[in-house]
Amino acid sequence: MDKATSENGVEEVQLLPFYPDEHEGIIVEMKEAMDPDDFSVILRYSLSQWKLQEKKGVWIKLPIQLVNLVEIAVKEGFMYHHAEPHYLMLVYWIPETLSTIPANATHRLRIGAIIMDDKRELLVVQEKFGKLQGTGIWKIPTGILEEGEDIFSGARREVKEETGIDTEFMNVLAFRQYHKSFFQKSTLLFLCMLRPLSFDIQRQDSEIEAAQWMPITEYAAQPFPPEYSIFKHAADICLAKVDKGYAGFSPLPIASSFSDQISHLYVNKEDLNL
Amino acid sequence: MDKATSENGVEEVQLLPFYPDEHEGIIVEMKEAMDPDDFSVILRYSLSQWKLQEKKGVWIKLPIQLVNLVEIAVKEGFMYHHAEPHYLMLVYWIPETLSTIPANATHRLRIGAIIMDDKRELLVVQEKFGKLQGTGIWKIPTGILEEGEDIFSGARREVKEETGIDTEFMNVLAFRQYHKSFFQKSTLLFLCMLRPLSFDIQRQDSEIEAAQWMPITEYAAQPFPPEYSIFKHAADICLAKVDKGYAGFSPLPIASSFSDQISHLYVNKEDLNL
Repeated sequence: MDKATSENGVEEVQLLPFYPDEHEGIIVEMKEAMDPDDFSVILRYSLSQWKLQEKKGVWIKLPIQLVNLVEIAVKEGFMYHHAEPHYLMLVYWIPETLSTIPANATHRLRIGAIIMDDKRELLVVQEKFGKLQGTGIWKIPTGILEEGEDIFSGARREVKEETGIDTEFMNVLAFRQYHKSFFQKSTLLFLCMLRPLSFDIQRQDSEIEAAQWMPITEYAAQPFPPEYSIFKHAADICLAKVDKGYAGFSPLPIASSFSDQISHLYVNKEDLNL
Repeated sequence: MDKATSENGVEEVQLLPFYPDEHEGIIVEMKEAMDPDDFSVILRYSLSQWKLQEKKGVWIKLPIQLVNLVEIAVKEGFMYHHAEPHYLMLVYWIPETLSTIPANATHRLRIGAIIMDDKRELLVVQEKFGKLQGTGIWKIPTGILEEGEDIFSGARREVKEETGIDTEFMNVLAFRQYHKSFFQKSTLLFLCMLRPLSFDIQRQDSEIEAAQWMPITEYAAQPFPPEYSIFKHAADICLAKVDKGYAGFSPLPIASSFSDQISHLYVNKEDLNL
């Protein structure tokens, strides 16, 4: 156990390694293995000190290798906050006032890519997996954004990966929110228009059964099941954009309050005269 | 340990309680306490059976009360998938092929509510917490969506809670994506226009320091710090909407492929002639 000797010669328990957060809280990122009994003693002592110091939220990030410490933290009153494959984040709210612990993420983001060439042909695919597999129905390329990825760059990446086509991001033309898409979580699907910069399809073998350029009228005439009406809407909105000046949202870089990264405001630039 | 007697009289280990998912997988929702050693034996046996049956993803949901089983599951090769305050979800991918386990949620959703009355006054607040506290700067009401909540209903709820004002949802006028807003997670802030149906402010005492109707020109002239430029943009976009017919997106109910709930497509209805 980590101990230090105080001025009067008595051994003292040290605090867990920590750094402060911006909300009068404490962040503990455990990295090294620790005997569970030692962890229990040090955690209890650390909490008592942080209570005296009137700290608020105490976070403990435990890599999955330190799974043997999870039970100790829960026994001390910690709750789960979120988890990723390789770590679990626990949190303890010290004050008796209302907790201001931020909510966990609730949504994943998907993109659907609307890409039309000069001959009014859409870039479409058939996937190797999923409910449309084997139906013969063609769909626009879709994909899930990675952690920390922007909508405009995720859309370009997915199209490139699935079809090999290079694109320029134009607009978000619509988006769809739906719930319970996996367990209690929700999904936002952004229908994005991209301009093709190349036309020679290189299909991604692992996920894509077939890919082609298909006349949009032929695409829109397919018998989409009712729960896939989003793919029919995509064609309607695409035609409204191309033929009738339908206005979508485009990304505008603006300063971010949460990090030194740029954030993006997706806004109807045409109507805002930008 | 749960055991059953087979036809030849030999005691057999039973499988964990489970039900199948729609992707050739297995979902185990543990509810009752179990001795960790028993859990270890039954889990190992269950996995061996599911491997023989060529199952794919195996999910185990452990309520926080059963934290003593987490280490056992990890030792058998399970990874964390996600966690909420009261449970941890673990997953094990059986096949040797590419995992199709769905990604975890990456975003939380916030709304910013733009509400203007007939005298061109915006509904604005000062919060008791946050970085603008004590600056004297007024902002539009903002809030975080709850799990499973629609953007249009979350916007109405937050405004009602913070200010007591009843509203009708009109449009999403813009949205902002920013990253690392809490740990590695991202946020989408939807700027929503709502029409006020009442005007008598009832301030939420726990979170709101002050609330009022404020002339929009006075609001827009405030010295917003650069990282809060989003609040200035909100005023510009509001004026573009009111004075110049700026088109945003409005929700259109469409069928959902993931549940029997209705999902919503947010689309520029004006340009789509809906």
